Amino acid sequence: MDNYVRIFDTTLRDGEQSPGATMTSAEKLEVARALARLGVDVIEAGFPAASPDDLEAVRRIAVEVGALRAMRADSPAQRPPIICGLARASKKDIDKAWEAVQHAARPRIHTFLATSEIHMHYKLKMDREQVLERVIEMVSYARGLCDDVEFSPEDAGRSDPQFLYLVLGEAIKAGATTLNIPDTVGYTTPDEFGALIAGIIQNTPGVENCIVSVHCHDDLGLATANTLAGIQAGARQAEVTVNGIGERAGNTSLEEVVMALNTRRPVFNLVTGIDTTQIMRVSKLVSNYTGIVVQPNKAIVGANAFAHEAGIHQDGMLKHQQTYEIMRPEAVGVTQTHLVLGKHSGRHAFKVRLNELGYELSEADLDKAFDRFKHLADKKKTITDADLEALVADEFYQPREVFTLDGLQVVCGTMGMPTATVRLRGPDGSTHTQACIGTGPVDATYKAIDAIIQAPNTLLEFSVHAVTEGIDALGEVTVRVESRNGHYSFDTQTETDRTRTFGGHGADTDIIVASAKAYLSALNKLLVASNRAGPAETPAFVAHLQTA
Amino acid sequence: MDNYVRIFDTTLRDGEQSPGATMTSAEKLEVARALARLGVDVIEAGFPAASPDDLEAVRRIAVEVGALRAMRADSPAQRPPIICGLARASKKDIDKAWEAVQHAARPRIHTFLATSEIHMHYKLKMDREQVLERVIEMVSYARGLCDDVEFSPEDAGRSDPQFLYLVLGEAIKAGATTLNIPDTVGYTTPDEFGALIAGIIQNTPGVENCIVSVHCHDDLGLATANTLAGIQAGARQAEVTVNGIGERAGNTSLEEVVMALNTRRPVFNLVTGIDTTQIMRVSKLVSNYTGIVVQPNKAIVGANAFAHEAGIHQDGMLKHQQTYEIMRPEAVGVTQTHLVLGKHSGRHAFKVRLNELGYELSEADLDKAFDRFKHLADKKKTITDADLEALVADEFYQPREVFTLDGLQVVCGTMGMPTATVRLRGPDGSTHTQACIGTGPVDATYKAIDAIIQAPNTLLEFSVHAVTEGIDALGEVTVRVESRNGHYSFDTQTETDRTRTFGGHGADTDIIVASAKAYLSALNKLLVASNRAGPAETPAFVAHLQTA
Repeated sequence: MDNYVRIFDTTLRDGEQSPGATMTSAEKLEVARALARLGVDVIEAGFPAASPDDLEAVRRIAVEVGALRAMRADSPAQRPPIICGLARASKKDIDKAWEAVQHAARPRIHTFLATSEIHMHYKLKMDREQVLERVIEMVSYARGLCDDVEFSPEDAGRSDPQFLYLVLGEAIKAGATTLNIPDTVGYTTPDEFGALIAGIIQNTPGVENCIVSVHCHDDLGLATANTLAGIQAGARQAEVTVNGIGERAGNTSLEEVVMALNTRRPVFNLVTGIDTTQIMRVSKLVSNYTGIVVQPNKAIVGANAFAHEAGIHQDGMLKHQQTYEIMRPEAVGVTQTHLVLGKHSGRHAFKVRLNELGYELSEADLDKAFDRFKHLADKKKTITDADLEALVADEFYQPREVFTLDGLQVVCGTMGMPTATVRLRGPDGSTHTQACIGTGPVDATYKAIDAIIQAPNTLLEFSVHAVTEGIDALGEVTVRVESRNGHYSFDTQTETDRTRTFGGHGADTDIIVASAKAYLSALNKLLVASNRAGPAETPAFVAHLQTA
Repeated sequence: MDNYVRIFDTTLRDGEQSPGATMTSAEKLEVARALARLGVDVIEAGFPAASPDDLEAVRRIAVEVGALRAMRADSPAQRPPIICGLARASKKDIDKAWEAVQHAARPRIHTFLATSEIHMHYKLKMDREQVLERVIEMVSYARGLCDDVEFSPEDAGRSDPQFLYLVLGEAIKAGATTLNIPDTVGYTTPDEFGALIAGIIQNTPGVENCIVSVHCHDDLGLATANTLAGIQAGARQAEVTVNGIGERAGNTSLEEVVMALNTRRPVFNLVTGIDTTQIMRVSKLVSNYTGIVVQPNKAIVGANAFAHEAGIHQDGMLKHQQTYEIMRPEAVGVTQTHLVLGKHSGRHAFKVRLNELGYELSEADLDKAFDRFKHLADKKKTITDADLEALVADEFYQPREVFTLDGLQVVCGTMGMPTATVRLRGPDGSTHTQACIGTGPVDATYKAIDAIIQAPNTLLEFSVHAVTEGIDALGEVTVRVESRNGHYSFDTQTETDRTRTFGGHGADTDIIVASAKAYLSALNKLLVASNRAGPAETPAFVAHLQTA
């Protein structure tokens, strides 16, 4: 058995399924580019059958990240990552997946069907024989389209092992090249999960010609340990997400699995293709785009993970790093030199730094970004990488703009009657101004925006954090809203609709302005979705859109 | 071997050592009360030798939570929790620990000394013989004071097992009743850590009369798995923190270990004394007081951990809960009924709800809290439990107030020149007013406060979140500042000074007012610390304090 563990990243599929983690197509593409630079072997780019938008997002990633011509000249990788699309075990889903991924140099179709008694009985309403037949039929169908087919027996962690061996053996005969074993509900212990993988490798006919993969969830805090136990039992692909985002308690963290294998190489004797120095950057990118914060005590990528060193008085233990440090911060891309640009930095220095951070902007976009940078530099003494990333995200990775913020004026304080005056520019170019009183400046601002846009919604989450240290820092606001107009999205796993939520982010040195931008960004996503949903569900204001 | 696993909570000691997690004495006491209600067996209340404040905080917990008379009449527990104080292996430290914990009905002294080559050589500058001698001497000394003595060989995970058996055997002879095995740097895998514990139980003379304990760190994301592996190998005490807070990537999460043992009882066949329905409440309390956020995808206590259910369209899979749910949300105290009080609720309903939440206020404090509640109810339609907790925390668990916010007026927006006017009341009762311009409303407010207080500091962290859903929600602001006046605190482990950071929080429907309160709360902690540090380090303004 080789000692190379393939990293299969499903941030854009299972991760994006977290409540509120919805990303725009542009954001997904940027994350896919970052994952390619990170060196993941497989990018699961989405679930194309979910909606035309999802299909299009996967197709763009296949074309722009998965194609040979998308390779950067200076990339250390020999070839672009495999681009994978998820499909339920149905011809329609598999066709959609193929339609999206076929443009990649190395496309993969990933299909799944549940094999646990509880899922077969309650969800699929199928018996064992029917499940087996469907698996054979659909894996064959997928293999007819694509040479690289992954099959997952859903809820494998709670399936009868004998039935599992049978199903997997038939999937191999039907053409599956990767067998992924998911602990769908995060129920197993490392011993159990390791034994499950060992059992599969020992008892499944033909398994020696396949890659066995593991896919764990963190409901009991054991995802990383279970994944490592599966790998030690012989799995050679790990399905993970950046920051461990995903349904409920999330998926296995990419960074934890990779750094455990790296840090304890003599124990595991296994390698991955990951450039670990990119980890921190990708972590921040995903956190910014999904609005899912990373807690300070998160392993590897938390703000405090390496704080021991930084916080200690210089005369202290720096000379004996290993006393309390098992990894070097630099190994995961934590750098101490945050201060890079100031108000006297020129356009060239700005462009070089953006390129170093992995952003490639067109000349026109660069001009726009440089303009904002100069504005920021007037207010803020030093501009850090985090500021630059917030600025680029705020400027370029926003949903299609329906309404834009044209002006905002706020009065608030302890004297009561916080008041906001908002001026928005609509899709037809007209401006609308409203003043409202609220319980605070954000409430007043949002009420004024609501008075103009009239898109009924509930604010589920509102958070602000300072992008960098210092009181003159950029504030970044993340909001999540739920439509009250009956928008549902389809959940692959449970095959049910769920209320759709929309996330938005905005950055500004004025947190009330940033709050307004974030709210508008979420509402713009909601408006675009409303428009697609058709006239019956369309609120009055979308008339603007249709005439625009 | 019995099947009862003791839960040793070190949130107040190892958890509080996280950068910026500093709690006030009142906050520590409230957390200790919550831990007692949760049913933990041991509360490690602090490190008394660190400072007179730390000693006093531990003593208060021993008196008010650990004494027999502190038991609530309706408590299901038979006796109060053990109150434990940490001490390095020195008489001075052990004396201080005893001074603090002796007031408890069941006091414990916990002493430690490193046994790994790297720590003995670089940190202790002692050889094996010297370490062994010191352990015998200090465990005996502690046992002379207290019947319950815990000993930890620091960095056991990287120690020579043979030397470890020898040291532990001698510690038992010297009177240790609990042997705690820490993986100090979070370096081991579950297999290794389980084998370490099995080896200790097999090879340490006299171990059958002791409780073996495990203490893991999450640097590689394996703390929970390592802890469970140690328990399966025979350990019967787990050292944990709420939300897994602690140095770097933090300690093992209490909630993950307890819920893994509960959810998979047939596998582990072990029980704890924890009332799991209290988990969510304690999690929120600790997050509020330390300012350390819990990420939405955190196992058990993250906002999304049970969101699968809530987010799904009602007609969906509710009737087959087990399809995707391995724990019931109610089991950890997640309740669906958030809406409890409104503007017409009376003082009695308010008091009853606070009692149900575990708060016991004096009549005078209740009047104050009710007054604020009425104010809030005027602005906000429904008041939830989270609002009540934020309100109580904001009103009663604040540092000693040096400066208070007397008035604030802010103008901001896209037109530029954000301006704040701040009026503070000083310790001598005088008021001070300043107006400042900033890069945003928070910056302007903080600059105005700085102009009055003149306590040089760097703002390290600033975050806001909405306490509940809805745009009229209370905003809660958490800040962390670092003194630029040379305040250091002593780090037990590394025996070095670290720059001291001070956290503050504030809640208000106006997030700029909440930001001002949070900053003042952090600065007040800093001012009190400055005053203690003696005149040489004391900035000019503290003259106020000395004459007050």
